[in-house]
Amino acid sequence: MVSTSLNPLNINSSSIRAQIQALQPQIVEWRRNIHKHPELGFKEQLTAQFISQKLQEWGIEHETGIAHTGIVATIPGKKPGKVLAIRADIDALPIQEQNEVSYRSQHDGVMHACGHDGHTAIALGTAYYLSQHQDFAGTVKIIFQPAEESPGGAKPMIEAGVLKNPDVDAIIGLHLWNNLPLGTVGIRNGALMAAVECFRCTILGKGGHGAMPHQTVDSVVVGAQVVNALQTIVSRNVDPVESAVVTVGEFHAGTALNVIADTARLSGTVRYFNPKFARFLQQRIEQVIAGVCQCHGASYDLEYWRLYPPVINNAEIAQLVRSQVEAVIETPIGIVPECQTMGGEDMSFFLEEVPGCYFFLGSANPSKDLAYPHHHPRFNFDETALPLGVEIFVRCVEQYCQ
Amino acid sequence: MVSTSLNPLNINSSSIRAQIQALQPQIVEWRRNIHKHPELGFKEQLTAQFISQKLQEWGIEHETGIAHTGIVATIPGKKPGKVLAIRADIDALPIQEQNEVSYRSQHDGVMHACGHDGHTAIALGTAYYLSQHQDFAGTVKIIFQPAEESPGGAKPMIEAGVLKNPDVDAIIGLHLWNNLPLGTVGIRNGALMAAVECFRCTILGKGGHGAMPHQTVDSVVVGAQVVNALQTIVSRNVDPVESAVVTVGEFHAGTALNVIADTARLSGTVRYFNPKFARFLQQRIEQVIAGVCQCHGASYDLEYWRLYPPVINNAEIAQLVRSQVEAVIETPIGIVPECQTMGGEDMSFFLEEVPGCYFFLGSANPSKDLAYPHHHPRFNFDETALPLGVEIFVRCVEQYCQ
Amino acid sequence: MVSTSLNPLNINSSSIRAQIQALQPQIVEWRRNIHKHPELGFKEQLTAQFISQKLQEWGIEHETGIAHTGIVATIPGKKPGKVLAIRADIDALPIQEQNEVSYRSQHDGVMHACGHDGHTAIALGTAYYLSQHQDFAGTVKIIFQPAEESPGGAKPMIEAGVLKNPDVDAIIGLHLWNNLPLGTVGIRNGALMAAVECFRCTILGKGGHGAMPHQTVDSVVVGAQVVNALQTIVSRNVDPVESAVVTVGEFHAGTALNVIADTARLSGTVRYFNPKFARFLQQRIEQVIAGVCQCHGASYDLEYWRLYPPVINNAEIAQLVRSQVEAVIETPIGIVPECQTMGGEDMSFFLEEVPGCYFFLGSANPSKDLAYPHHHPRFNFDETALPLGVEIFVRCVEQYCQ
Amino acid sequence: MVSTSLNPLNINSSSIRAQIQALQPQIVEWRRNIHKHPELGFKEQLTAQFISQKLQEWGIEHETGIAHTGIVATIPGKKPGKVLAIRADIDALPIQEQNEVSYRSQHDGVMHACGHDGHTAIALGTAYYLSQHQDFAGTVKIIFQPAEESPGGAKPMIEAGVLKNPDVDAIIGLHLWNNLPLGTVGIRNGALMAAVECFRCTILGKGGHGAMPHQTVDSVVVGAQVVNALQTIVSRNVDPVESAVVTVGEFHAGTALNVIADTARLSGTVRYFNPKFARFLQQRIEQVIAGVCQCHGASYDLEYWRLYPPVINNAEIAQLVRSQVEAVIETPIGIVPECQTMGGEDMSFFLEEVPGCYFFLGSANPSKDLAYPHHHPRFNFDETALPLGVEIFVRCVEQYCQ
Repeated sequence: MVSTSLNPLNINSSSIRAQIQALQPQIVEWRRNIHKHPELGFKEQLTAQFISQKLQEWGIEHETGIAHTGIVATIPGKKPGKVLAIRADIDALPIQEQNEVSYRSQHDGVMHACGHDGHTAIALGTAYYLSQHQDFAGTVKIIFQPAEESPGGAKPMIEAGVLKNPDVDAIIGLHLWNNLPLGTVGIRNGALMAAVECFRCTILGKGGHGAMPHQTVDSVVVGAQVVNALQTIVSRNVDPVESAVVTVGEFHAGTALNVIADTARLSGTVRYFNPKFARFLQQRIEQVIAGVCQCHGASYDLEYWRLYPPVINNAEIAQLVRSQVEAVIETPIGIVPECQTMGGEDMSFFLEEVPGCYFFLGSANPSKDLAYPHHHPRFNFDETALPLGVEIFVRCVEQYCQ
Repeated sequence: MVSTSLNPLNINSSSIRAQIQALQPQIVEWRRNIHKHPELGFKEQLTAQFISQKLQEWGIEHETGIAHTGIVATIPGKKPGKVLAIRADIDALPIQEQNEVSYRSQHDGVMHACGHDGHTAIALGTAYYLSQHQDFAGTVKIIFQPAEESPGGAKPMIEAGVLKNPDVDAIIGLHLWNNLPLGTVGIRNGALMAAVECFRCTILGKGGHGAMPHQTVDSVVVGAQVVNALQTIVSRNVDPVESAVVTVGEFHAGTALNVIADTARLSGTVRYFNPKFARFLQQRIEQVIAGVCQCHGASYDLEYWRLYPPVINNAEIAQLVRSQVEAVIETPIGIVPECQTMGGEDMSFFLEEVPGCYFFLGSANPSKDLAYPHHHPRFNFDETALPLGVEIFVRCVEQYCQ
Repeated sequence: MVSTSLNPLNINSSSIRAQIQALQPQIVEWRRNIHKHPELGFKEQLTAQFISQKLQEWGIEHETGIAHTGIVATIPGKKPGKVLAIRADIDALPIQEQNEVSYRSQHDGVMHACGHDGHTAIALGTAYYLSQHQDFAGTVKIIFQPAEESPGGAKPMIEAGVLKNPDVDAIIGLHLWNNLPLGTVGIRNGALMAAVECFRCTILGKGGHGAMPHQTVDSVVVGAQVVNALQTIVSRNVDPVESAVVTVGEFHAGTALNVIADTARLSGTVRYFNPKFARFLQQRIEQVIAGVCQCHGASYDLEYWRLYPPVINNAEIAQLVRSQVEAVIETPIGIVPECQTMGGEDMSFFLEEVPGCYFFLGSANPSKDLAYPHHHPRFNFDETALPLGVEIFVRCVEQYCQ
Repeated sequence: MVSTSLNPLNINSSSIRAQIQALQPQIVEWRRNIHKHPELGFKEQLTAQFISQKLQEWGIEHETGIAHTGIVATIPGKKPGKVLAIRADIDALPIQEQNEVSYRSQHDGVMHACGHDGHTAIALGTAYYLSQHQDFAGTVKIIFQPAEESPGGAKPMIEAGVLKNPDVDAIIGLHLWNNLPLGTVGIRNGALMAAVECFRCTILGKGGHGAMPHQTVDSVVVGAQVVNALQTIVSRNVDPVESAVVTVGEFHAGTALNVIADTARLSGTVRYFNPKFARFLQQRIEQVIAGVCQCHGASYDLEYWRLYPPVINNAEIAQLVRSQVEAVIETPIGIVPECQTMGGEDMSFFLEEVPGCYFFLGSANPSKDLAYPHHHPRFNFDETALPLGVEIFVRCVEQYCQ
């Protein structure tokens, strides 16, 4: 990756807006550099090296190698105050890029298809700006987290102590969001993104000749009735004013059309916002599977994983972010108030530890064909969102820590 | 009822056929007399009186009042031999007759809609003929059984000893059958009619506001999944070369469209031929209900009754009947060999005790509009079947007992 | 009903709070008077008479007999300003009261089991107070609406012109709410209560003998699969961040356990917040029923009614109410911010016409055994909520109309 | 393969039984030779060569290369009479043999696991015996048919004219049957084996994110409800006294647990005895799939194949075989009268053309560990059944053709 000297910029203009806008070429350049060299979770070696090099260049104290490839930079303000963390995830996805851009992925089968390259560039821009304008109160910790997509880098970073010493008072983070147009921010109190859980179930019936069902326990029939009965969890057991999803993504049974399958393998994903559903949905799923198996004399193996808890914003910190978004008056940013998605994020683990706020930064621009959904091989976003992200972060720092 | 003297007949012609045909007017008269005065199970007072009067008139020894309204007549042949029982059921149904015949039911809401009036008349005809032609070997017992339709008179008659003293060696019986045309006989080895069982199940959920399903256990949903899962008993658990039926005839739940029902009441009937299913189907039904209830956190009450076992013919006695049907050569009778119905009959209790054969005597004649199904308010049969029934019984007696 | 003179009160104290608290005995007396004489929808003759008599006594101009038994009172302030409507529903329910209070229902089988007696008393209290303190700006219209429970009086009142002449600028209303404790108010922007729709479906199969399913179309089985497939509307077709309910409250099929039922009657209720589901859920329900019937060769009749749209609060008017609730500082009232219920209300029709806000006034007090759910035969509420309701209404008037 | 000269035998003993028993070593040797060299359908080159070589050796006129690898031998009796065909299938299965016998398969992955080696040896034994004892009336055609297992050689052989010139009057055939013990024969009038049909269905939904079901048509849910609804065909639409099977052997949908599957592939097999179900079951299956897809807005592709019709025995020819089995008195053979299986056989095509009888020749001998089911890698049968098969065929020829 090419390193770029920022010294010639000589930023000292009066308004935050103007100064950050002036940084846009650099932020874009960093983002493209990272986009070119996407790396999967816990393998973000080049990416971490690039981040570290920049931070060093700018004289920012930082620790590397946390939870394999994570980095924490600490930027003290000139006055005492609270400690605000800013979190950016840095990993890419196992997707083959189909964009034809100059900065397209140079790693076959790996792509920044979710915008984490942008998140990293925004965090770098924020770090750079703050390192040049340290007249804020308090301390800023910038957390570059690996492996958000899989298997999750937030938890090991927390376990490695990134929220301690100095202790973080609050945390903020953002996701570039192609479901919202450029110039908007999606934010809400409480649950923004869902808990992510998953299961793998093997129905154990008894195989046999397709013409002699009475000698078998037909795992296709048992599996079908499991799928059926699982529907009632959302339709009948979840309070309608709450949100939950139980999806069976895979159903595989049988090897020949005239042989009754001895086993059916069902696997799926579970989502919800309200933490009270954590054990409830798992229990209901197992109860349904057990009951249907009992009906038919089948047995089952069930594995269940709670991957990420829901992303739950603290109302006060959400209000902080909201107020700073509203403070941007040169080009006002629209706030989408009740934005919510059943998608998940391991930002949730940080938010379980300290109050904070995660928000969506609108990045779609259909007029430039920049509106493909996240994880699509043609995903890309409008880069003019990048300085907006920096500006919101910087304003929050200046407001919060004082 | 009008009593008719048979003395003037002075039957002594050479051929069985001719003599029995000559009896037709009397047999028809008896049948119509009984048809006019139908009586429900265990209330066959007038019917029994009529039968007894006839038997007495003909000098036939008989016992009355067995299992309330049953009668057994005993006719000894002139030579020693085996004991053959002939069984006829005598009860009517709680149906309002819609036929416009001269002999229509004079009892409101009660009707001989299944042909038992004919069965009784055939048995009387047989008794009369045999009493006039006692040169057969062995002994004939004619069992006039009450309450076949409900709740079953065969079992109490057996318990009262009708098969003992002298001990019955074999038993035969017939059902006039509008599913077969006049001039045919349906007969088969093994199972002719099905076992009859039934169940009543109450699903106990938890009621509540129709808009708040999460506070309830929705008994409509649980009941629906029970109905669903019950289908797999026949489709998957019963050997396809066997026969079984599981029918849910009633499903009642809920009192208001916007209130979730706390209980669902399901009731149904179960049929099968093979005695090996006796416990199996009951167990599967309970297992299905228990499993589905467990799925959804409901509980249940299940009542299950085994009413009648299957009607299973002994191959040898069936062959006896078949050979005597084939012996009728003046107007040959077609044999429908694999005739079978999932309907039930308490003749089955007799057949559990002694070898025997039950068969269907074709009685439909669409050209005379005599083809309504059994239990229909317009059910009626072609009365020319009556002497055929007598002839087959008489031939069997002469063949078997010698 | 006993009329009570308020003249002796001579209210002229300085604070709203104190003056309204002083009215409590009268408000309670009115409420109990109404409670004693509950009347069903569009039959609220005595109730309307009582309201009218009070208004006349206080010199308040009003029109009676609107949509049968509705009343609109108009109270002009001393200064010009906007027109705010306050809506109260006045009807009772067909429930036999089981409370043992002195003021229990004197009408057998009819009861104020939802708190409309309190709503009416609060509206009367507000009218009285305002008539005594007309130094507010603008105009207040107080709408006493019949038949909220069934079949809906809001729509005919709107059609009768109650929002016109003078034209109403905004409308507010409240529901005493035993799901919230006394001293709290539930309020939210957007949807507070759900749309209410309902359906009645007859599955037309073909009946027959319980042992001969192949000659039938088993409406129990078809109905069960309809119930089953309907579950997928909420589990799969509704965006998980939205709310919807599809409940089958009644399932009735069959008259005998051994007869296959020719028809199954299913009826249910449908709820949702987002108006975009209005046609969607109805279409899905019909599509599911049609598809399942097609599967099995059955046909169906479907009736579907859209009773009430969702109760959707205008954000600005909701903020007005919220700010006035917060202004009560003597005994602060807790605000429950995201309160929502899938229950319905025909207040929604008013809110479709003019911006407004409906809110829940906490009325439960378990320590006094006043916490039974609405529509329960023992429902009752803490009457100290009544002056709170008056105070919030009065404050909104004073704030809004100026 | 080793050819064996039979000349030295010089069979001329008086009884059929003794003469055929004396052939046992040769028949066994032929069978083992064939067993060693199993060949799949239409690839039976070595097998056909071996058969042809034997026939030529014995001077039996025959035609080879019919329908690829089929052979028809014609043996005229010395007197004029009817033409009886005897059919044997000659193909093996794609199974790796796990038996450790001296004559185990020498072709990797191919095995005579269904007994066709024995069928061929019996037919050869019959041919040899008849060629040595041509004093029977009429003509015998021995049909060595390829590809019974798959894809079916009977139909192309019929199309090639094997039942013509001279025209066959009746046909018989047998299947060695490990479901019956050695020393028994399973035979029945009417349907002995089932029709075999199969289908492949692709449910076309719309894939999407596992957390956003409302943007999809979930093919797993649709497929599950198809499986469910298909159960009702056997449980409700098929006369309980008839036999039918609808099995979904394969259900495959989805590639990731958190992605809703766009397509589900279901395939299965259908069986029945009564030819009247031929179109009925196919129509019901399509109706069910179409209806469920319509419920959920999915579409489908359905392929359906009618492979083999049911094997239906002619009552007269079945009686012929039965009488000849009963004629074996030296070591009486038990007749299992109502033997039936839902397995299929393309013998059915011959039986559609000419009256005939197919029967099961008991071949299990658990005391010698010869009782594994057909198609099992350890399948083997008791070779003392082989001369019994020859004897029954020979007796039928002598009885029938005269």
